[in-house]
Amino acid sequence: MNPAGNAFVSVDWGTSRLRVRLVRRGPDGQWIEAGESATDEGVAAAPDASPSARRGWFAETLRRRVAALPDGAEAPPLPLVVSGMAGSNRGWQELPYASTPFPLDGGAMVCRHLPPPPGLGPVLLASGVRTATEIMRGEETEMIGLVAALPTDPSWQNGWLLLPGTHSKHCRIRDAVLEEFHTAMTGEVFQLLSSHGLLAHAVIREPPNAGDDHPAFFEGVAAAIDTDLLFALFQVRTRQVLRGASPESGRAFLSGLLIGAELRPHIAEGPSGPPILVAADEARARLYCRAAAAAGLEKRLRPAPPGALRRGLVLAHARLLEHFPPPPGPHPASASPP
Amino acid sequence: MNPAGNAFVSVDWGTSRLRVRLVRRGPDGQWIEAGESATDEGVAAAPDASPSARRGWFAETLRRRVAALPDGAEAPPLPLVVSGMAGSNRGWQELPYASTPFPLDGGAMVCRHLPPPPGLGPVLLASGVRTATEIMRGEETEMIGLVAALPTDPSWQNGWLLLPGTHSKHCRIRDAVLEEFHTAMTGEVFQLLSSHGLLAHAVIREPPNAGDDHPAFFEGVAAAIDTDLLFALFQVRTRQVLRGASPESGRAFLSGLLIGAELRPHIAEGPSGPPILVAADEARARLYCRAAAAAGLEKRLRPAPPGALRRGLVLAHARLLEHFPPPPGPHPASASPP
Repeated sequence: MNPAGNAFVSVDWGTSRLRVRLVRRGPDGQWIEAGESATDEGVAAAPDASPSARRGWFAETLRRRVAALPDGAEAPPLPLVVSGMAGSNRGWQELPYASTPFPLDGGAMVCRHLPPPPGLGPVLLASGVRTATEIMRGEETEMIGLVAALPTDPSWQNGWLLLPGTHSKHCRIRDAVLEEFHTAMTGEVFQLLSSHGLLAHAVIREPPNAGDDHPAFFEGVAAAIDTDLLFALFQVRTRQVLRGASPESGRAFLSGLLIGAELRPHIAEGPSGPPILVAADEARARLYCRAAAAAGLEKRLRPAPPGALRRGLVLAHARLLEHFPPPPGPHPASASPP
Repeated sequence: MNPAGNAFVSVDWGTSRLRVRLVRRGPDGQWIEAGESATDEGVAAAPDASPSARRGWFAETLRRRVAALPDGAEAPPLPLVVSGMAGSNRGWQELPYASTPFPLDGGAMVCRHLPPPPGLGPVLLASGVRTATEIMRGEETEMIGLVAALPTDPSWQNGWLLLPGTHSKHCRIRDAVLEEFHTAMTGEVFQLLSSHGLLAHAVIREPPNAGDDHPAFFEGVAAAIDTDLLFALFQVRTRQVLRGASPESGRAFLSGLLIGAELRPHIAEGPSGPPILVAADEARARLYCRAAAAAGLEKRLRPAPPGALRRGLVLAHARLLEHFPPPPGPHPASASPP
């Protein structure tokens, strides 16, 4: 029997979000999401308390989310797979990183079985990956999932996978092995500059509905290509002072500027460099495609199919359960009632 | 008679600081500082009130600072020269910018005479300089002063003047004419990243006494040369996680990283590019010289002599009074007593 049986609970525990999904095997043997319970109870919400109190918070928070799933209280309790920041020093239990080169079939992950917490099944906690100078926790699981969801994508032979976000990951892959990766602090720098200091006065905080189509976005991409970022940033201010640019225009310009800066290493590889697969929600993927076109990378960069990232995460968790099945023997029912 | 007579008041009104200096002519005809009164009453401290209430705040704040000078209440009231952000839309009265090319003898400045405020002499308010995409207010006056203080420096024939700060100005000069300039948001980005977000946990807020000598500073410069800034920033975090780097080390690394990023355009010009004169306080100038040496720019970059920036500002204000003497006729004594 497959170690995951016919159902398991997929847990993506990020810094700011907790996403718990019930996953069942469908009639054709495929894994199907059968329900989700997501909240803002990310790792950052854990109390600043003793290690055992923190562990208790993680177990109890997860128990409540599982109970909120359809049939979440079914017996025997389902196995759980947890990836993301839960394996960090700010998380449930700190696990060491796996190292590159890191095969993307899931077998090279550093994982640990936690005993079943009160009211829950056995927990498989997944760690992250490091190089000499870089770290990630969670994105490696997304990559394992994308390889599973898009097995014939040419990126796995020789390409870049780009996972945009607060800390965007640029992942160099050859023969389905992660060789190296680099982190661009795009999202965080955008957030800081649009919330504090001089540029905050020139950038609207909340995105307008049609903001993604603003021509200032392309101005920003062009500025990023021409000018080192530390200098180009000041143009957010001078566009406002000298040209009366609106805060909506300022936001689009800053967005183009930072995404353009993020694409600079790929521009340096030239238009015939390796393919770049962007996996993100549709709105964000569209921004990267537009910036890539303005930067002469339109033949290299393309978006992953809609939903691939989400579908892949479930597939990755199923793979981890295959590679790291729960220890044999009965899982004792929890001493405390659920 | 020289329009400045034998004494005037030199006012440097920045965003965060107000510096008022009494300047007298010495026995050999040189201008000599005879007293200073400085506070945190920068332009940012002006009340968010009606234009006339704001003008009143500027006049009254200046009157109090002049009164705090030695013999500040002498009659007749001395002429005043005000440069910096006081001429901005957040200042005393908004003046248009002068444009490049901008000769650095002071004659091309946009200036306006304000009527004597209560208890004060006539005020000469100086504006800033713009290009198609850049703006400055105050640094152009510093440049006029440096040319006056260091008349034989080779930078005025063909070179860069670098004025580090919250918004560092890189000024391209030929034949004592400012041709273009570029603003690096070095100080502000340092402040934002070390105060908010992920990197704040890896960077100590207050500089340690010996922090400028930290070897991590050179690591930061090297990272800036190798890696685009948006990516290199994440190393502040990974040095802490993977190598246990202290917050003092994190601060030195981030400082080196940002100063290195600021020097990148000059690195691109090569080791035999134009000379670069750095005008700053001694500690900051030393940092730039160290970074330049690590970046292969040691033959191009050198610091202005200690005190040149301060001495120059007084000389620049004296020049502005020569170019823009107070309007003829008696300056009526203020209606209000000082």
